[in-house]
Amino acid sequence: MLSVDFSFIEEFINNEQIKSIHGEIFKAHEKFHGNKVFEAIGWLNLPKEYDKKIIEKIINEAKAIRKNCDIFIIIGVGGSYLGARAAIEFLHSGNYNILENTPKILFIGNNISSDELFEIMQFCKNKRICVNIISKSGTTIEPAIAFGFFKNFLENIHGKDGARERIYCTTDLGSNLEKLAHKMGYKTFIIPKNVGGRYSVLTAAGLLPVAVSGANIKKIIAGALNALNFYSIFGKNLNNCYKYAAVRNLFYRQGKITEIMVGYHPKMHYFTEWWKQLFGESEGKDGKGIFPASAIFSTDLHSIGQYIQQGPKNLFETVINIKKPNHDLIINNSQNDFDNLNYLCGKTVNFVNQKALEATLLAHTNGGVPNIVLNLDSFSEENFGHLVYFFEKACAISACLLGVNPFDQPGVENYKKEMFKLLGKSNF
Amino acid sequence: MLSVDFSFIEEFINNEQIKSIHGEIFKAHEKFHGNKVFEAIGWLNLPKEYDKKIIEKIINEAKAIRKNCDIFIIIGVGGSYLGARAAIEFLHSGNYNILENTPKILFIGNNISSDELFEIMQFCKNKRICVNIISKSGTTIEPAIAFGFFKNFLENIHGKDGARERIYCTTDLGSNLEKLAHKMGYKTFIIPKNVGGRYSVLTAAGLLPVAVSGANIKKIIAGALNALNFYSIFGKNLNNCYKYAAVRNLFYRQGKITEIMVGYHPKMHYFTEWWKQLFGESEGKDGKGIFPASAIFSTDLHSIGQYIQQGPKNLFETVINIKKPNHDLIINNSQNDFDNLNYLCGKTVNFVNQKALEATLLAHTNGGVPNIVLNLDSFSEENFGHLVYFFEKACAISACLLGVNPFDQPGVENYKKEMFKLLGKSNF
Repeated sequence: MLSVDFSFIEEFINNEQIKSIHGEIFKAHEKFHGNKVFEAIGWLNLPKEYDKKIIEKIINEAKAIRKNCDIFIIIGVGGSYLGARAAIEFLHSGNYNILENTPKILFIGNNISSDELFEIMQFCKNKRICVNIISKSGTTIEPAIAFGFFKNFLENIHGKDGARERIYCTTDLGSNLEKLAHKMGYKTFIIPKNVGGRYSVLTAAGLLPVAVSGANIKKIIAGALNALNFYSIFGKNLNNCYKYAAVRNLFYRQGKITEIMVGYHPKMHYFTEWWKQLFGESEGKDGKGIFPASAIFSTDLHSIGQYIQQGPKNLFETVINIKKPNHDLIINNSQNDFDNLNYLCGKTVNFVNQKALEATLLAHTNGGVPNIVLNLDSFSEENFGHLVYFFEKACAISACLLGVNPFDQPGVENYKKEMFKLLGKSNF
Repeated sequence: MLSVDFSFIEEFINNEQIKSIHGEIFKAHEKFHGNKVFEAIGWLNLPKEYDKKIIEKIINEAKAIRKNCDIFIIIGVGGSYLGARAAIEFLHSGNYNILENTPKILFIGNNISSDELFEIMQFCKNKRICVNIISKSGTTIEPAIAFGFFKNFLENIHGKDGARERIYCTTDLGSNLEKLAHKMGYKTFIIPKNVGGRYSVLTAAGLLPVAVSGANIKKIIAGALNALNFYSIFGKNLNNCYKYAAVRNLFYRQGKITEIMVGYHPKMHYFTEWWKQLFGESEGKDGKGIFPASAIFSTDLHSIGQYIQQGPKNLFETVINIKKPNHDLIINNSQNDFDNLNYLCGKTVNFVNQKALEATLLAHTNGGVPNIVLNLDSFSEENFGHLVYFFEKACAISACLLGVNPFDQPGVENYKKEMFKLLGKSNF
């Protein structure tokens, strides 16, 4: 269960200030629960309106994939990439591929790197692979290029019929990719049109890869449903999700223009990357928005820690504290105490990690950097689902508080238009 | 050879403005080349004053390690971690461990994650491993804890004598770790005392791991020496390194308080992480400093691209354009042009990557975000060495322009003190 600790912001924002924007929060709340003004809110009730047949289909196909391949290749970028990767690393490890898991899972088509394509094709030689292309349109350039190479790769080895059995398409209904899949007989999963890319982790875009990793996707949805129930209520005491949105908006008004999302476990890196897209794309428009940065401590205390402690006071941090790792280890005495660490003898590694977290909260807050702390007990599927929904809802509310549309990304077209011109695409 | 393109900043900063701070640049230059005011400037002449015997010793030990082990474990954090990792990924790949390289290289002791230690010990079972602990003091808590586990791990399998042959210590002369190494008979490499952690990649801290990866460390030093020769000269026309320092300082004065270091190849991720520590720790003090952020495009164009294009105009980007990958691939026609990509038929993947880069420069600059572009031809050792020295020198000059000490990090002690108190260390 998620609890949120706001005690480390008290010197920066008081309850009166939070109360002063209750009215704005209510207006934002009404945009989702009253007269609905946005189309792209399929994510809002997804955890309670899910089609059980689709969940069963995902689970069954994942079983087949786990049985039939050594390497599962996931092709996607942005919202068709970060959610699945965040989930797999959160629920297993950033070291997933060196663990004794089957199949290995590799992510491609999220860049335009020929080296990466080359290296991964080399690695896939003589191995049984399956490919999942995730692309709402089917025409995004990065996944389309990568899919071209891997479709050929499979057809050269297995022929068209064999390739057909190994290709899974996750896309919008009526997209070019969906049409191709239909024609070729590829297995297809549909992303609801009213769920935007960065809000799609709880659709097949995220759930098929996660199921292939062996995690329990029903529990993820149960966690999200639990969050939905908590964060759909507007009351005198703001729910934690709305309070988070309120506090970060008040910080922004105070000139705190960068939020650092902090985890204390390396397996949380891609969760923070997912969060950066969610908030950066939703809020960063019309000249507004909080800059979304991320860090994994204690690693990055040895990198940007100095800056946070003593640099300009225009930052705040949001810390996700997962209290229990999957495996803890007891620290032994070292040789002659050469490292001055014998006082830790008998303590566990995670005990030290928790103390590093508590110490950093004190040090950074004293240094003028407020911290919001999200506490969870473990890296469970339920907790992942809950966190995802918490941030999705908080992001939608936050963007409304800023006065921008949480669901569009008009600026992403700018570089694409320039690129199509330079590439000589017709009509550009 | 590095060339720097300043044409994408011309609408934001003119030559007069740059000239107006030539005097300040000269003062900063004199701090390194005139009356030397800092102690920790061993890095400044390292590429020309290197002890050739040490280079030969590193090369020979690396050969032995490559022959004698399946997995090379590097234990270090911050400046004893990021440089080595940046180099190995830049010169090979972020996918280094799935390539057909020997030995595999794993990094631990850069966090306090029991899960990661557990997973990597599991992976190392029944494999031949060597361990390189890199720690200037030997008492930094993250590497010390990890070393405790791996020293035991080795001694349990090989006995103390066998472990002795497999442990390499890279540390300061007279440190606790050096004393232990001397007593135990571990092979030892010394980091010069006047080279700070974040400036230490061209010492054994970076060079031993890089040599184990199979890269040519003499070429890295040659590249750095080449840079040293270019960037030691102060003239009417600022050298590119000084001009970069001048421009970013002028941006800061204009209120551009975040710099995003951008690469277009996933293998550059850890180079940008190394850069973040270098600049964040050097500049972020006394309430001053540019916030160091990073991105790998095109991946992150689908994440923070929207924010950069249309968010607040308080950012600038520094783009490292490495023009040639190690392997390029030709794009073929797709089935019925379902992905609308057939206009790319016959072009290479890297051609598209280059056009994405050019397009993004235009789009972001037009959107009010200036870009400095560093152009290099390939991922060579020489280019890596050149880039490292370029940024080290630019960072030192930049910090002087800001009026802060480039070589201390007093704020890093704050959380450590709180942590030692919470952990019950005596005298805290």
